[in-house]
Amino acid sequence: MGKQLVAGNAVIGQSGGPTAVINQSLVGVIEGLRGHGAIKRIFGARHGVKGMVDDKLVDLTDTPQDRLELIAATPSAALGSSRDKPDRAYCERIFEKLKARDIRYFFYIGGNDSSDTCRIVNELANGSGYELRCFHVPKTIDNDLMENDHTPGFASAARYVAMAFMGDQLDNRALPGIKINVVMGRHAGFLTAASGLMRERDDDGPHLIYVPERPFDTDAFAGEVERVYARHKRCHIAVSEGVQDKNGTPVLALVSEIKEKDAHGNVRLSGTGALGDALADFLTKKLTPAGGKPPRVRADTLGYPQRCWPDASPVDQQEARRAGRTAAEVAVRGDRDGSIAIERVSTSPYESRMKRVELSAVAAKTRHMPEAWLKGSSDVAPAYFEWLRPLVGPMPRIGWI
Amino acid sequence: MGKQLVAGNAVIGQSGGPTAVINQSLVGVIEGLRGHGAIKRIFGARHGVKGMVDDKLVDLTDTPQDRLELIAATPSAALGSSRDKPDRAYCERIFEKLKARDIRYFFYIGGNDSSDTCRIVNELANGSGYELRCFHVPKTIDNDLMENDHTPGFASAARYVAMAFMGDQLDNRALPGIKINVVMGRHAGFLTAASGLMRERDDDGPHLIYVPERPFDTDAFAGEVERVYARHKRCHIAVSEGVQDKNGTPVLALVSEIKEKDAHGNVRLSGTGALGDALADFLTKKLTPAGGKPPRVRADTLGYPQRCWPDASPVDQQEARRAGRTAAEVAVRGDRDGSIAIERVSTSPYESRMKRVELSAVAAKTRHMPEAWLKGSSDVAPAYFEWLRPLVGPMPRIGWI
Repeated sequence: MGKQLVAGNAVIGQSGGPTAVINQSLVGVIEGLRGHGAIKRIFGARHGVKGMVDDKLVDLTDTPQDRLELIAATPSAALGSSRDKPDRAYCERIFEKLKARDIRYFFYIGGNDSSDTCRIVNELANGSGYELRCFHVPKTIDNDLMENDHTPGFASAARYVAMAFMGDQLDNRALPGIKINVVMGRHAGFLTAASGLMRERDDDGPHLIYVPERPFDTDAFAGEVERVYARHKRCHIAVSEGVQDKNGTPVLALVSEIKEKDAHGNVRLSGTGALGDALADFLTKKLTPAGGKPPRVRADTLGYPQRCWPDASPVDQQEARRAGRTAAEVAVRGDRDGSIAIERVSTSPYESRMKRVELSAVAAKTRHMPEAWLKGSSDVAPAYFEWLRPLVGPMPRIGWI
Repeated sequence: MGKQLVAGNAVIGQSGGPTAVINQSLVGVIEGLRGHGAIKRIFGARHGVKGMVDDKLVDLTDTPQDRLELIAATPSAALGSSRDKPDRAYCERIFEKLKARDIRYFFYIGGNDSSDTCRIVNELANGSGYELRCFHVPKTIDNDLMENDHTPGFASAARYVAMAFMGDQLDNRALPGIKINVVMGRHAGFLTAASGLMRERDDDGPHLIYVPERPFDTDAFAGEVERVYARHKRCHIAVSEGVQDKNGTPVLALVSEIKEKDAHGNVRLSGTGALGDALADFLTKKLTPAGGKPPRVRADTLGYPQRCWPDASPVDQQEARRAGRTAAEVAVRGDRDGSIAIERVSTSPYESRMKRVELSAVAAKTRHMPEAWLKGSSDVAPAYFEWLRPLVGPMPRIGWI
């Protein structure tokens, strides 16, 4: 259990929804491990834990640096990803495979489910006296991991959302109407809140921003839209896919028939336009005057481009790389386990550092937007945008007439 | 009717769905007119023909150049746009307003409906002996204008679509399943075809591309998806929003209840995820083995970000600017009317030139993808991508493991 290093192989896996920078973290781990005396071979697991149990490993030890750079800059998970959420029995199979392969260093890049996998595998290793280093590298566009100022993957997705809303609110200004854009984020509103980053003028959209941290009331929603529409003759709206009413019922479940659930038992929210369309239909019905013309209501669901758009934030790319490298460095320095977290040192000029935190501090927990970053029932406070701005990279300027 | 110039004011309007570069064309017209002796004031009409009849004009004559540059680089229509499709009576109101304002130069930036507006207003002027120069400046992401190699706005939208499919097919590779992405394009498949631009490896998506030029058969569709899925364990699909069966019935109308029509009498296709969701439901039902597990089918509708994404193609920006400037130059040179079209001089190195064409050659006509650019029932030929590549600007490189 001490600081003495056991020589052996390493394996790296990628898990959950891909991001624009998860390959930066992969390459960061490889860079941090390569050339270290205790590291024999560096394997990548195809499709995360699935590849580990199915013996689908690829040897990355000697991948040339220029190839690594190209991989790092490419969005999505180059090794393939997995939606499996291993239970104890599944983790035991993983652990048996690790032992059989003489793997002593285990890195899993993913969200809070992935840190939980690390935690369980680590317990199994500890319990059996097998010397294993077990590290979680953070990744999620939702930014909902505890201990992190923000998570790798989030800034690039936020950049996408801010760009999309910048263009779309100009579109809505040119052709006024009611426009709903549904943004990813099942439990946390960080990504949806990024929709407001590029607002400059008083009447810029989005005029209303709905996050899962605030209970969603369909009647209050219709009232707010009506007020904005009466004032500006248009209404531009950001809605998180995870909005719920005060009883915790997803709004999608309230207004549609869709019941499909994923492997984690959650209602299907992404890869469908159902929530946006249902809200658009709801508003059309609510806001059509008796005997009058219905307002023009449209909905877009920003969808998967949010997570794999091939124009990542430079800060996000650097930090995702450093998070991977730090995990490797902490492991070969002798720490037994942990997760890497991003700590903000300063906002202006922007500076961050990587730190090791306990797996249990991150595993299976969810971070939410702090109260101070929300404003009323349907807006985001300036403090949030001050926090966000240095993360997203250079943004276009806007010219008005 | 001769070549002699009548001094007077000019008005510029923007029409139809906005694009990332329609403001480049606006600034091009202003630049081409400014300082010319025959041009007194240069007005912009708010919301196109609506602003003309409602006296909502803004004087742009003295807008500083640095301000113009900022406007030019901003997506969407800075003057506001309009979906009105003027009939003869509407055009008479426009014409009366032009006369009342001493407007002798009329520029309308838009698609084929806008060129038809120009054509009618021009006829009214000719009929009444009022000296008016009437010019159409092309704009449409659909690329469906006759006489043009391609239209301003298309290349930036194609860039967006190619980027989105590049990221999304990598996403689909990481987490395999059946994924449908619905792309804009009511009558022409040019934009949907751009989905295949970044394919490199044999098994890269999109594996199937459906354009309006090919009759869509739902059973054949299910069969093709099943074959790809059996081979690659995933299937990545591009579908144009305008796909129709062999009788001309929109697929959306076949598989859903949505009947809303726009001012032009068309079924609502954009601003809803209905088509993608309906196709996803259809495939799920068709491809679930008896008593077996349904495949993972998801759909995204790329939506409005396609047309106003704030990262336009550099070629598109330059050409949109030149199209506007050419319209102004042709007008003050003495031509009475016309539309500006882009002619390709060479593909490698890429070079284009602007030419004047007759309004009647463009007005209310629709260009379709040539047969030689289609491949089988559900793919696009290499010749299309050779044509497209120089237009979209620098694209990211892809790193594989």
